[in-house]
Amino acid sequence: MANETAHAPGYWTDLSLSYDEALARLPDALKKEGFGVITQIDMQETLKAKLGVDVPRYRIFGACNPSLAHAALRKDPRVGVLLPCNVVLYEQADGKVVLGAVDPMQTLGAGAASSGLVEIAREVAARLERVLAELAA
Amino acid sequence: MANETAHAPGYWTDLSLSYDEALARLPDALKKEGFGVITQIDMQETLKAKLGVDVPRYRIFGACNPSLAHAALRKDPRVGVLLPCNVVLYEQADGKVVLGAVDPMQTLGAGAASSGLVEIAREVAARLERVLAELAA
Repeated sequence: MANETAHAPGYWTDLSLSYDEALARLPDALKKEGFGVITQIDMQETLKAKLGVDVPRYRIFGACNPSLAHAALRKDPRVGVLLPCNVVLYEQADGKVVLGAVDPMQTLGAGAASSGLVEIAREVAARLERVLAELAA
Repeated sequence: MANETAHAPGYWTDLSLSYDEALARLPDALKKEGFGVITQIDMQETLKAKLGVDVPRYRIFGACNPSLAHAALRKDPRVGVLLPCNVVLYEQADGKVVLGAVDPMQTLGAGAASSGLVEIAREVAARLERVLAELAA
């Protein structure tokens, strides 16, 4: 599970599950870590509808742990631009299934040492890493 | 309109509009810049429902320009963890209404020089700044 700082900030893992299996298991894996799925974007469907282009299956789930979101917003009301924490599931052209999550230490926690968000970001990061690990197991 | 690097990465502006006026005008202002509202979170309602706490009005809009999102995903499929671009509208305890947007140069564009995302991030940033300027005018 590499943390690729040269690309989009996140944790990424290749799955041996199928896309459909991962899709079915993700909500429970998130729930075990206290996250609800508060938004969901089917990017394949959206790009087909808006642009008429065909892309492989691609979904973005907005994961929100209400207690941690509330704590973060109390530290800094502006953190809403970084909420919810995205979890991404996509299929590559070669059929490989990839699961990723934003790295909150690089978004919520970045440059925020003074406003106390780092501790919250670290907690969210640990939970998201466990979600990925569960589906990658 | 300050770009506050010490806090959540974004553009922020105080509005003279009421919260309800801003809420009504925001979708059209986004549409003029090619963004659809693809997700919407009523954080006040969510925190009340999940935690029973009362916070001032607070909404997070996920703004997506399909062409730019598609271009970004072609550069790097992992950018989904940073999509859509959030626009935040909230009311302070003192009644002041604040509008903000994520700074894509600090999320999409960060550390991405090699994957060609910076140009796209710059374009998105310019559009989001115009949305904020229109409501702040």
